[in-house]
Formats: sequence, structure tokens, C-alpha cells
Amino acid sequence: MATFMDVHHGMVGITEDELRQAHEADVAIQAEEGVTFVNAWADPATGTVYCLSEAPSADAVQHVHQRTGHPADEIHEVPLQV
Amino acid sequence: MATFMDVHHGMVGITEDELRQAHEADVAIQAEEGVTFVNAWADPATGTVYCLSEAPSADAVQHVHQRTGHPADEIHEVPLQV
Repeated sequence: MATFMDVHHGMVGITEDELRQAHEADVAIQAEEGVTFVNAWADPATGTVYCLSEAPSADAVQHVHQRTGHPADEIHEVPLQV
Repeated sequence: MATFMDVHHGMVGITEDELRQAHEADVAIQAEEGVTFVNAWADPATGTVYCLSEAPSADAVQHVHQRTGHPADEIHEVPLQV
């Protein structure tokens, strides 16, 4: 498994409910792709959302996000953490 | 206080030691700006580093990073988290 930070752009004005619903939709199917979404942070002003996950691959992360209707714009493996 | 995600670009090939040293340099002076750096994640392949912090303002976050020689390229307040 590896740690990934994926980034969504274009979610200007995202609300707390919308963020929670999107996260819960991902969590509902994540096991099918071997992914575990750990945290998500959102900046409604610029529409930027960051999702931290543990997954076998970046593709697996994107598969979950695609299936729930909000594909990531960037997916970074982040092997280093402090 | 608010939660911020700041992003550094251009750190291709960053090593675990370099990430730790940069983070420790920030932590050493953070209190002077009222900032608490919580986590940092790095993608050496693309040179992207994400820093999560609690701070009174984005400027305070940037002041710490500037004083330790690695200013952020983006700073996002992330008031929403799940």
C-alpha cells in the first residue's frame, strides 16, 4: 500500500454537507478498490479539495473517485511524511 | 485559528531527511507566528510538498516558511474537513 494526496479543482462554494456526501460515497465503495480514504479538506473559496488515502495505486484512487462522479484532477503518491 | 493546506512545488527529489529538516526548521520558529504545523507530505517525483497547519492567517503560515527559506507556492484555508 502507498499514501496518496489527490486534488480536486473547480469545487468553488463546496459546502460541508457536499464534502461529507462526496467522502461518504467514496468510503461506501472504497473497499472494492482496496482504497482507504483517511481525510479530506476543502477550500470553498478556490474550489480546491485535498483527499488523503492509502491505496495500492493511483489508478485505484481514481477509480473510486470516477465511480462516485468526482474524478481527481491530480493524484500524488506521497511516500514521505512528517 | 484556522486550518491551512499549503503547497510547495519544485522540490523534485526531496529526501526524507530534507523534508524532516524543513519541517523541524518551521516547527522551531512556528510559535513566534502563532502557527502549528501538523503534518507534511512529499511527492519527490513531482517535487510537490503539502503542509497542513493551524494558524491565525495565511500570512502567518507564509512568514514561517519564508523565514526558513522555503516559501509556499499556494496557501489554502481549508475550513471544511472530514
